[in-house]
Amino acid sequence: MASFLQWLKESIKQQGSHVCVGLDPDVSKMPKLEGTLPEQLLEFSSAIVDATASPNHACIYKANFAFWLACGAEKELTQLVSFIQSERCLPVILDAKFGDIGNTAVKYAKAAFERFTASGLTVNPYLGPGTLQPYLDYGPTKAIFVLSHTSNLDAAIFQEKCYCSTTSEPLFVKVAREAVALRTENTASVGLVMGATFPQQIGEFENWIEDWNPSAIPLLLPGIGKQEGDLEATVALASRYPFVVNSSRGIIHASSEADFAKVAGQKAKELCDDINKALR
Amino acid sequence: MASFLQWLKESIKQQGSHVCVGLDPDVSKMPKLEGTLPEQLLEFSSAIVDATASPNHACIYKANFAFWLACGAEKELTQLVSFIQSERCLPVILDAKFGDIGNTAVKYAKAAFERFTASGLTVNPYLGPGTLQPYLDYGPTKAIFVLSHTSNLDAAIFQEKCYCSTTSEPLFVKVAREAVALRTENTASVGLVMGATFPQQIGEFENWIEDWNPSAIPLLLPGIGKQEGDLEATVALASRYPFVVNSSRGIIHASSEADFAKVAGQKAKELCDDINKALR
Repeated sequence: MASFLQWLKESIKQQGSHVCVGLDPDVSKMPKLEGTLPEQLLEFSSAIVDATASPNHACIYKANFAFWLACGAEKELTQLVSFIQSERCLPVILDAKFGDIGNTAVKYAKAAFERFTASGLTVNPYLGPGTLQPYLDYGPTKAIFVLSHTSNLDAAIFQEKCYCSTTSEPLFVKVAREAVALRTENTASVGLVMGATFPQQIGEFENWIEDWNPSAIPLLLPGIGKQEGDLEATVALASRYPFVVNSSRGIIHASSEADFAKVAGQKAKELCDDINKALR
Repeated sequence: MASFLQWLKESIKQQGSHVCVGLDPDVSKMPKLEGTLPEQLLEFSSAIVDATASPNHACIYKANFAFWLACGAEKELTQLVSFIQSERCLPVILDAKFGDIGNTAVKYAKAAFERFTASGLTVNPYLGPGTLQPYLDYGPTKAIFVLSHTSNLDAAIFQEKCYCSTTSEPLFVKVAREAVALRTENTASVGLVMGATFPQQIGEFENWIEDWNPSAIPLLLPGIGKQEGDLEATVALASRYPFVVNSSRGIIHASSEADFAKVAGQKAKELCDDINKALR
């Protein structure tokens, strides 16, 4: 079984795409479908995957846990993750931003990697680097994406405007330093979430951390599309990393009519092309 | 309908107790019960509530989301919260440490306050104070408990050893300042999570924040029991706040035999008495 990092790199190459499609299905923006609400979320999302995976516009998917949890769609979330990973052979990140201590983190790791069978998981570092260990213990077939600098406008208040007392580096750099240092060849991969709304921060790591190895650190870059991040600047700074650019609403809810999947495929292709153009 | 803060203060008074019983049921530490695993968690937890609510040893409960999520017990979690709040008339905090942005935070608030019908919710502030707003919008019958200084040993790495660039206060104080400032008479209450393993930090807020009003800020204090926090020092510093001391394993898994509920009642009573003694 390939490591997460190998799988991601091969998916990017095979698909010719750095696009992560965010599966945050909002029923108020979906066309009328049959069945219960959880069934509708699954049908809608599966159609999005069909329209973006096989025409090679996406290399990975990110399922936003909140949208499934709020309406009791845990079973359908599991089915969706299994469908994407087993039948489309592309990895899925569960975007749950779990963060807790000791035996509670063990349970969250179990929920993400065993119950929902996700390959990647977003995690929140606020409680300290040691709290990430239970996820790492799942080994190289899994990955965590640690929140470093998020895409929202007030992210900077804590993440950028608070400084480490010993190194003077901003919190988001300190978080990245501590998280990446936990990785060994026997642990899960350690990636970072860096908002595309703050592209210049991606370039900060190498200014602060000497033994930084971008090729082993997958980046998940949200904030493109509705959040209006700067794609060209982001791609320029991320190109040394195995990076994926996430877009959710800008792809999956570009149309709320019966043609939603087709339009999602077009929007994913546009983003894929824009990223590849910026890479040249 | 009373506000969360009124309900908590009245529960503390009526029960004569500052004990929060943490419902983190771990099947490996439970006696053999009938039914599916989720049914066993519900039966076990309900028996714990019966043994600790009516003999007035607990004033509030905290359900640890991870333990219910890992085994697919969402339905049973909802039943447990409803049982405690409707039949025992005591509030429940959902300990999920949610933290996300914009429309995702709206979905987490919906999951916590509508689907699981919790009165309180723990939230993670790393993404910035603005991300707390969707929870606050549920109004005064609800409360959020924002992670300020957690109880784990490496909590200090980010929370205490990173400083705000403008005020020089440590991150956990900056978080508390920003979070508490969001509260109005129309919002949910804003409480703080402060680990009893670092009691002196509870005293820090008033050194940094001028208009600090402890009586309006409920404190959730974990870290007593297995984590060996200093109860006397914690209570001395917390006594000006509406505070509750959480113990989970030290109460619910004190016995793994058929007498688990009876022993849990005894352990909750011991903690209740120890806190009340420290308050005198």
